[in-house]
Amino acid sequence: MRHVSTNRPFVIRRGASLWPACQKWSASHLKSIMGDEPVNVAITPHGNADSVLQIPREDGEEPLSLFVKPYETMEPFSEVLDTIRTQQILNASPRPPSPVRYLQTQNDNLRNEYTKLFSDLPSSVPFARIALQKPPDAINFWLGNSYSTTALHKDNYENVYVQVLGKKHFVLLPPVEAPCVNERAILSATYRPVPEALSSTPATGDPSLSATVVPHIDEPLTYTPFCTWDPDVPHRNTTPFSSLSQPIRVTLEPGDMLYLPALWYHKVGQSCNEEGICCAVNYWYDLEFGGGFWSMAAFVRSAGLLALPEHNHNGDTKTEERKVPSQ
Amino acid sequence: MRHVSTNRPFVIRRGASLWPACQKWSASHLKSIMGDEPVNVAITPHGNADSVLQIPREDGEEPLSLFVKPYETMEPFSEVLDTIRTQQILNASPRPPSPVRYLQTQNDNLRNEYTKLFSDLPSSVPFARIALQKPPDAINFWLGNSYSTTALHKDNYENVYVQVLGKKHFVLLPPVEAPCVNERAILSATYRPVPEALSSTPATGDPSLSATVVPHIDEPLTYTPFCTWDPDVPHRNTTPFSSLSQPIRVTLEPGDMLYLPALWYHKVGQSCNEEGICCAVNYWYDLEFGGGFWSMAAFVRSAGLLALPEHNHNGDTKTEERKVPSQ
Repeated sequence: MRHVSTNRPFVIRRGASLWPACQKWSASHLKSIMGDEPVNVAITPHGNADSVLQIPREDGEEPLSLFVKPYETMEPFSEVLDTIRTQQILNASPRPPSPVRYLQTQNDNLRNEYTKLFSDLPSSVPFARIALQKPPDAINFWLGNSYSTTALHKDNYENVYVQVLGKKHFVLLPPVEAPCVNERAILSATYRPVPEALSSTPATGDPSLSATVVPHIDEPLTYTPFCTWDPDVPHRNTTPFSSLSQPIRVTLEPGDMLYLPALWYHKVGQSCNEEGICCAVNYWYDLEFGGGFWSMAAFVRSAGLLALPEHNHNGDTKTEERKVPSQ
Repeated sequence: MRHVSTNRPFVIRRGASLWPACQKWSASHLKSIMGDEPVNVAITPHGNADSVLQIPREDGEEPLSLFVKPYETMEPFSEVLDTIRTQQILNASPRPPSPVRYLQTQNDNLRNEYTKLFSDLPSSVPFARIALQKPPDAINFWLGNSYSTTALHKDNYENVYVQVLGKKHFVLLPPVEAPCVNERAILSATYRPVPEALSSTPATGDPSLSATVVPHIDEPLTYTPFCTWDPDVPHRNTTPFSSLSQPIRVTLEPGDMLYLPALWYHKVGQSCNEEGICCAVNYWYDLEFGGGFWSMAAFVRSAGLLALPEHNHNGDTKTEERKVPSQ
């Protein structure tokens, strides 16, 4: 509770290791419980859900930046699980040979799609229930392989992240580093399957399993504020403040619990267990808007945006990367 | 503890009413305990300790701003008490007819000068001991009359303020309002007695009791960062942001306890009980420098200073009001 009050992250090593989920879950157990239940699956070409994609253009033009969301479709759980495992186990390449599937709905899916698994989890995290004095707004199930990554972003939530199978690799930045992350309003797009690819891939019974997906710009045109600086590629897409960032890196092992405070930027990668999967759950609690935290963090973010060089001399702002509106 | 964690003030009405100090103290009781013990007394012409004074200058020049500190001297407690009471009871004028005395050392005086009174107080405030997890850095005794005021300022402390006799009138501004208070580096001065006044006032046994004090500029020249905007005179000495301030006003009655969070700006006036005195104690606890609070509050303050009009075009900054250095 004292850590939560200062908005500082911490890990409770093995803090969830006695939860039934951490004791019982495995690929075969999950398959036996969920069976062929249809679940929402996010499909991307490179494991890049909710991230910025650079589209090259001809004639020396600047590449087009797109904020791409995954293609979402319903598939039987057991088939998705097998595809995720097979892709992981049969390939050693750093680039995925086929579209990447990730179960990552983040819409309170454990109390909806995955009700059958929810009985292996507490309805709230004890320390968070006491420190935050509210029930969770959402409890989410995550299952993917090492090809899926989550790009640097922040959430307006207090977050408790519990690793069940495999490992998660977090890069964390505090809210005061908002001026480092080069937040831009990026033209939004969504992956869609290519119809020709669908008809020309008879290898598996379900053509969508190997379908190629390509980005389509959303209509009407919308712009999503998103980080364009990557702490793992620190010399590209910098602001004048990026070099001052002091990222914190932490890896969660099975049974570990991370308190990820509200408004902390986080980038997440994962590695799989011997079954070829990575599985986690997280609890989101609404953040405290009273007191000075929210207003001061919002001010730091706005000041960082106003301090960007193109704000002070007109003409060189790219049309597809607009100034981020204050929220 | 939950209020403390969000840096929000609160009052516990009658929260200290069972403390021995609130049960036993009165002018006569204090006199009987402290007797003629010498105590440090702050003397000012208008009750204006630690405040900004405007000195008129000739030939249409801008007035000179001085940050004046009180003349401090040692006097017997019983005499100071009598002077404070007499001045309050015998005068109805809004301006004091003679120099104003205020016992306000703020140097942990209850565990030093006023040890004899400290046994009527707890060594820490229970809720603060638990919420802040540290002992107080200082416990202070305050005794004055309605002529004494404390100008708008902030402290790098968590503060618990307990009213014992009379009333205190607080005006409170959160740290995020730093850009409203027009903080300036003001030339520092200290009140000193006028020697002629000393020799020409034979009315009382002790000439210092009616001595006139005048400000002397400190040497070497020093500048003190201080608020120059007054929420009770809101159209004078404004910044572009002062009109956005939303001051909170609260009056403490005897036995009331105020939690005044770290870095909140406060201006304090007082009214006396029927004995002609106002008496309070306060507990200072070190603030939490970990987490984002201190760094974000410091950033808001710095941004406010940089946004002042004279920062953007040179030449019209008064020499005696320099840009406040970041701390």
